[in-house]
Amino acid sequence: MKKNKLNEISNLGEFGLIDRLTKNFTITDKKLVKGVGDDAAVFESSQDNCFLIATDLLVEGIHFNLIYSPLKHLGYKAVVVNLSDIYAMNAKPKYITVSIAISKKFSVEALDLLYEGILLACERFDVELIGGDTTSSLSGLFINITVVGEARKEDIVYRSTAQKNDLICVSGDLGAAYMGLQILEREKEIFIQDPQIQPDLQNYEYIIERQLKPEPRRDIINRLKEAGIKPSSMIDVSDGLSSEILHLCKQSNLGAVIFEDKIPINEQTAKAAELFRLEPLIPSLNGGEDYELLFTIPLSEKDKIEKVQDISIIGYMHENPEKKVIVPKYGEEIELKAQGW
Amino acid sequence: MKKNKLNEISNLGEFGLIDRLTKNFTITDKKLVKGVGDDAAVFESSQDNCFLIATDLLVEGIHFNLIYSPLKHLGYKAVVVNLSDIYAMNAKPKYITVSIAISKKFSVEALDLLYEGILLACERFDVELIGGDTTSSLSGLFINITVVGEARKEDIVYRSTAQKNDLICVSGDLGAAYMGLQILEREKEIFIQDPQIQPDLQNYEYIIERQLKPEPRRDIINRLKEAGIKPSSMIDVSDGLSSEILHLCKQSNLGAVIFEDKIPINEQTAKAAELFRLEPLIPSLNGGEDYELLFTIPLSEKDKIEKVQDISIIGYMHENPEKKVIVPKYGEEIELKAQGW
Repeated sequence: MKKNKLNEISNLGEFGLIDRLTKNFTITDKKLVKGVGDDAAVFESSQDNCFLIATDLLVEGIHFNLIYSPLKHLGYKAVVVNLSDIYAMNAKPKYITVSIAISKKFSVEALDLLYEGILLACERFDVELIGGDTTSSLSGLFINITVVGEARKEDIVYRSTAQKNDLICVSGDLGAAYMGLQILEREKEIFIQDPQIQPDLQNYEYIIERQLKPEPRRDIINRLKEAGIKPSSMIDVSDGLSSEILHLCKQSNLGAVIFEDKIPINEQTAKAAELFRLEPLIPSLNGGEDYELLFTIPLSEKDKIEKVQDISIIGYMHENPEKKVIVPKYGEEIELKAQGW
Repeated sequence: MKKNKLNEISNLGEFGLIDRLTKNFTITDKKLVKGVGDDAAVFESSQDNCFLIATDLLVEGIHFNLIYSPLKHLGYKAVVVNLSDIYAMNAKPKYITVSIAISKKFSVEALDLLYEGILLACERFDVELIGGDTTSSLSGLFINITVVGEARKEDIVYRSTAQKNDLICVSGDLGAAYMGLQILEREKEIFIQDPQIQPDLQNYEYIIERQLKPEPRRDIINRLKEAGIKPSSMIDVSDGLSSEILHLCKQSNLGAVIFEDKIPINEQTAKAAELFRLEPLIPSLNGGEDYELLFTIPLSEKDKIEKVQDISIIGYMHENPEKKVIVPKYGEEIELKAQGW
């Protein structure tokens, strides 16, 4: 019994599982710069240029609920979560493929809406749809998007190259998408009990939009470029700040010190957290789906970064790989931990 | 009511649906050589070289049944059906990404087996696993594999470049995978009624293997190269010979004449068809999952192709795009039609 329990997938966690499943795969191709283990894989197209590839599978009932996800929003989101992975490598997304599995309950008009959202994202971010697969499913909607990006080799930023004492920065604010989801879930429960009651989403428009229609931070990539800053490491915040900081630490073999009062939290996020009797820190650390960029820069770039809009410096990389902590406003340091899968 | 019926997805068919969903997407990128509409999309990596990308989504209960698909075979098959798309462009597969959604019933040991099959295919065909996504599903197993291939631009073969009077050739034999599936389905029904009865698969080993563990025809690509033959058009047989011929015709704006007695059918396929009271021609035309290569060559290459092992000349491209027929052994020409989705 004990063995079985140990072998349960949830105990391994997503990243433990990936490590286990891919451990026997070897990499010998000389043009492959980066395989599994970053936001995107990287392979050379010429001496100076690389293509990148990332893929993301969204599952109905796990990643989205059609009761409150409009199909056009869903199509848009399915694309941008992939683009975010390419921006997180400091690269430019170029092409996508879209695979969908649909159950019989879907009308072609519903699919039209989904593809309107996909098209909107493609147009907004200059990306082209170049292929895909369309099939049926016994139940539920599945969307797998793969994105191909491009970059000069020297511009690409990895997770593994942070240096000790580098400043840790994050764009935008954190925890909003998670709290938006909680509001939507609450209204769904009310709706299920009494379909006559209209959902009350007032005062939470921002965090709901963050959940239903996240925006990848191409603007941040452009602003950093304009400011002459190349991050020393970078990752996008898809699983929550804690999880992403731990990735940077593990892959750069460093620790991290984060200051609680520097973590950017929107007012609506804080208000919603209060409503659900949560510390606002919790959704920011563990909420996920923010699609903000988390990156490090050398201390010497501090003056430059402070002039870039919508960036918060939240801590620094520590030379001791064992030290991964949050410093609260009052009291003792708290150890950073990733949420379970 | 009539409108709704017209709008049902099954009435559009897979390719009609794809046309409808992608009609508003425009292609402006200059490096994109081919988008939606061939076995793989093609984009330039340098002046002389291209990368290719293809993707395929396999759904439990639709594309495979875990009652008779061993997980290792399934992992292998999920890879090779993608590789087949790259070979069908006369290119070399290089990298894959693997996205899976799994229900709670899966143990990590089951996933280990699936990945053993994926690894086996990677090793056999010199392909590297470079990324993916792993998530949960509410029910069933979903596997989406995306493959990146590479080729010299001048070597790539499309569906749209067949010429009138070109010979139509196909590798291996057709209909075996479909008849293998029928045998497996029959034994499944017997097993469900009485789990004590062992499945009787004797004398059908070949066609069952064709269903459970298809092999992509890299060998044919290599043999054609050695023989100095570059096909004028090519496609892999995934949906059945009829459907693939119609693709070549539509995209090359030509017709086709196929001779029934030239269609290669294995003895086990014919025997199984007889058992199920089917004309052996039916699974060959409409069965699908053969993963053979269907291609055209100029008439002037006839002597050369006859020396290449495991190739059948089954007909020729006709200058009239309206003429798409099979010439039976006896009787009148039959119009080629694709099976419904």
